[in-house]
Amino acid sequence: GVLGSGDFARSLAVRLVCSGFRVLVGSRSPKRKAGLFPAAAEVTCQAEAVKKADVIFVAVFREHYSTLCDLADVLVGKILVDVSNNTEINHHKESNAEYLASLFPACTVVKGFNVVSAWTLQSGARDGNKQVLICSNDQEAKRTVADIAQVMGFTPVDMGCLSSAREIENVPLRLLPAWKIPIFLALGLFLCFFTYNLIRQVIHPYIREQKNKLYKIPVEVVNTTLPCVSYVMLSLVYLPGVLAACSQLYHGTKYRRFPDWLDQWLQHRKQIGLLSFFCAALHAVYSLCLPMRRSHRYLLIETAVKQAVEKKMTIWVEEEVWRMEIYISVGIIALGLLSLLAITSLPSIANSLNWREFSFIQ
Amino acid sequence: GVLGSGDFARSLAVRLVCSGFRVLVGSRSPKRKAGLFPAAAEVTCQAEAVKKADVIFVAVFREHYSTLCDLADVLVGKILVDVSNNTEINHHKESNAEYLASLFPACTVVKGFNVVSAWTLQSGARDGNKQVLICSNDQEAKRTVADIAQVMGFTPVDMGCLSSAREIENVPLRLLPAWKIPIFLALGLFLCFFTYNLIRQVIHPYIREQKNKLYKIPVEVVNTTLPCVSYVMLSLVYLPGVLAACSQLYHGTKYRRFPDWLDQWLQHRKQIGLLSFFCAALHAVYSLCLPMRRSHRYLLIETAVKQAVEKKMTIWVEEEVWRMEIYISVGIIALGLLSLLAITSLPSIANSLNWREFSFIQ
Amino acid sequence: GVLGSGDFARSLAVRLVCSGFRVLVGSRSPKRKAGLFPAAAEVTCQAEAVKKADVIFVAVFREHYSTLCDLADVLVGKILVDVSNNTEINHHKESNAEYLASLFPACTVVKGFNVVSAWTLQSGARDGNKQVLICSNDQEAKRTVADIAQVMGFTPVDMGCLSSAREIENVPLRLLPAWKIPIFLALGLFLCFFTYNLIRQVIHPYIREQKNKLYKIPVEVVNTTLPCVSYVMLSLVYLPGVLAACSQLYHGTKYRRFPDWLDQWLQHRKQIGLLSFFCAALHAVYSLCLPMRRSHRYLLIETAVKQAVEKKMTIWVEEEVWRMEIYISVGIIALGLLSLLAITSLPSIANSLNWREFSFIQ
Repeated sequence: GVLGSGDFARSLAVRLVCSGFRVLVGSRSPKRKAGLFPAAAEVTCQAEAVKKADVIFVAVFREHYSTLCDLADVLVGKILVDVSNNTEINHHKESNAEYLASLFPACTVVKGFNVVSAWTLQSGARDGNKQVLICSNDQEAKRTVADIAQVMGFTPVDMGCLSSAREIENVPLRLLPAWKIPIFLALGLFLCFFTYNLIRQVIHPYIREQKNKLYKIPVEVVNTTLPCVSYVMLSLVYLPGVLAACSQLYHGTKYRRFPDWLDQWLQHRKQIGLLSFFCAALHAVYSLCLPMRRSHRYLLIETAVKQAVEKKMTIWVEEEVWRMEIYISVGIIALGLLSLLAITSLPSIANSLNWREFSFIQ
Repeated sequence: GVLGSGDFARSLAVRLVCSGFRVLVGSRSPKRKAGLFPAAAEVTCQAEAVKKADVIFVAVFREHYSTLCDLADVLVGKILVDVSNNTEINHHKESNAEYLASLFPACTVVKGFNVVSAWTLQSGARDGNKQVLICSNDQEAKRTVADIAQVMGFTPVDMGCLSSAREIENVPLRLLPAWKIPIFLALGLFLCFFTYNLIRQVIHPYIREQKNKLYKIPVEVVNTTLPCVSYVMLSLVYLPGVLAACSQLYHGTKYRRFPDWLDQWLQHRKQIGLLSFFCAALHAVYSLCLPMRRSHRYLLIETAVKQAVEKKMTIWVEEEVWRMEIYISVGIIALGLLSLLAITSLPSIANSLNWREFSFIQ
Repeated sequence: GVLGSGDFARSLAVRLVCSGFRVLVGSRSPKRKAGLFPAAAEVTCQAEAVKKADVIFVAVFREHYSTLCDLADVLVGKILVDVSNNTEINHHKESNAEYLASLFPACTVVKGFNVVSAWTLQSGARDGNKQVLICSNDQEAKRTVADIAQVMGFTPVDMGCLSSAREIENVPLRLLPAWKIPIFLALGLFLCFFTYNLIRQVIHPYIREQKNKLYKIPVEVVNTTLPCVSYVMLSLVYLPGVLAACSQLYHGTKYRRFPDWLDQWLQHRKQIGLLSFFCAALHAVYSLCLPMRRSHRYLLIETAVKQAVEKKMTIWVEEEVWRMEIYISVGIIALGLLSLLAITSLPSIANSLNWREFSFIQ
């Protein structure tokens, strides 16, 4: 059974019909709304639909839950699936599902399907996340809804009891919250170092020696900036651990909570580390591209021509040779190690490591 | 209990014995077949084995299920595990497990272990997929079989009720179905562009100017072809979305099914996109290899010598320098962004993103 | 309820209180220990705590389990969660959880939370593995503990019945056991080939021709060594399969166990293959860096100057050009194929492939 006639209700009905279920739609004006639903779904009045169905999807807004109170008698013993979402994180004091459960104490309420968009429902779980997070205080009801999700082509995930509903309702509203601060931090650092390097490598030679080196901006200046950002970010990954240890030593206990800013910082370490790796990898690619450039080729030929005209045969500078060989060598090793760190932060790899192995690699 | 004496039955018996279970093998000619099974497994007649066992693995072909009907009385209340596979996708109207359930209505049928090969059973789940997909209409029986799979070293995955059996039986017959069309598409595009570039870069100069440029075939021609393929594939990822939107605008509704060809196309977008990324990455590696080549070195030296002999000191062409710097810069940024897209299509990352985040990144 | 007052007990109490549970701590000297626990946890004598709680975390060492026997009467019907760890793999004949179950036959024992460190418990599941492995012979008790883990922010994983406890207790003691032999193998091979290449490329020319080529050590010698290691490792991946097939042909059966050394070898193939890929990838990066080096630049200019002074215009050697083009071309294709193999060994990708697809790609 589906209560409601909005976008989500219609998509849900389409998908349930396609998955081979018998679907009853309960609407307050069944005649007017019947055309909106697939032909195989029976559109009747609400009481009728509820009476015949065992599992009822409540696809109405939280604000209208109270209008269902007339149906309380026929709803006794049924499984109600709350599919609603909020417009803000932690909008109401109580999650929608818990509010529904308090209105209909004689029903079993299951939270689920809210993380799925109407578009995914309609067109099938194509790419991206196929998981449907489900929670309920009743195991049997949870299993019934999980089986329905399975048949519809989704992967049900058991999230425990109904108190998890708040968390599940917040999921679709998230937009990479853990990444916001680290990304702005990286952009800020990039801008600072870019300005400094621009002045040093382009503007200063122009003013002092009237040399036009603007061509260095897209590749060389960026390439000098990236490792600076990467280094600072990497040190910001290890700094809070040191600060936390100092704080514990100072207070003489490890059972005291860290101040909020340090706690936040500790929680963003993974993201900061991955951005540091991303900058380091970009720096590697930029560096590898250096000999491909026209400017590199021209400078090389010019030097050769100058040497040939002046008949200087040797230009070998042992110190410069060694500096470059060691720089390249150490750079590759550092990138290799950072890659291992980045790979172990993939969820599926991290889940196959125990705590001791994870610390060892870090 | 294991019914049957084929390859799978023997491997199953080996594995169950190794995992510490007491194994009873039911065979129609127990004396002759006893030598095939491990010594710790008791090989008896079928009725005997069925009587003493609680969980019975039915390792016989679907065609011979009816021969088990004599055992119907002793099978009452037992758990039957259907481990059979088909030779074609959707071979029979009814899945093997559902057919078995219809023959023995007094038993609980569980589908499982068919995705595991006899070789994996025998030698233990070493690499690749360790999952055993299980479905049944009875929760208790499903859990019992899941616990057995766990002890045997596999990861049981609950696939819901017995109607999923058809899907589970099709799993081992799949051979990357979603990849076939995109791979042939990429190969076709590669061939076309390769021929065009071969004519343009090698055959045409040879005919017109008698210049032998055959050495360009393995690296340069391939390197010019790859980005063409990559671009066309990338546009084929975004085109069907636009067509789908047009179709919805034209019909004035989003509840109408798309034509089959468009639906198929929409479903292959992820694979087309990943192949586009693969071509782009190969193009990057090929481009980076260009300055490593002998031919590059020779051409460079030849130019230098020519300049030195003619005593031309300046060869700097500002426009060419800028073109290359910008080309490299934009190429690296594009590759970086495509890498992010490719990483979010890893199943474990995609499962940790909600719909909003996934769309944002795309 | 929490029994015990050690580090783990305190962290557990902190976390349970933070997750909104009512926590009773049972201690033998409640007055002295009360200060160690968060204010919201009630610290009482053991009998008192056990009486009021339904789920009791036993955070005492295995050696002290017997001291809890006085509480046997009040423990009847309660759920005991064994969170203990050992100091050695397979330390005792019986797992701690099974030992606890044998001491208190009237209780339901659940194994869990031992894979989580006290630090993770206290500070919340931040990065790395969030999984809590749980096993028990009682489904209802297992589900109760899984729900508690969920609310605490962990991901409960059902590991089947209590006989899995031994395996779960071994998990935190593992330190990448499958990687030890392959890593030492790779290091050994690297040392051998490095010494050989060092003698050949640096020491021999120095002794014979007094040429100082020490600058080749950090990049060129390493770069010649890496592909040798990679090739040998790759052949070690495919060799044991051939040996296993020969052994089966020789003995005329595939139901005979392989000798232990071959079995061990077969089980390490994935790790050996990944290390081979890692060496190949490093070789690719080193090779790409070659034209970036100062020494490369100097040698190039020197050759050009020499040619210009001697007025030799052509230095093109067709054979060398072709050798390099083919070498680069084949190298890139090989690296591309190895990358695909490496990607399919990611757990989340491997789990989405069936056996036929996995073999096809291999």
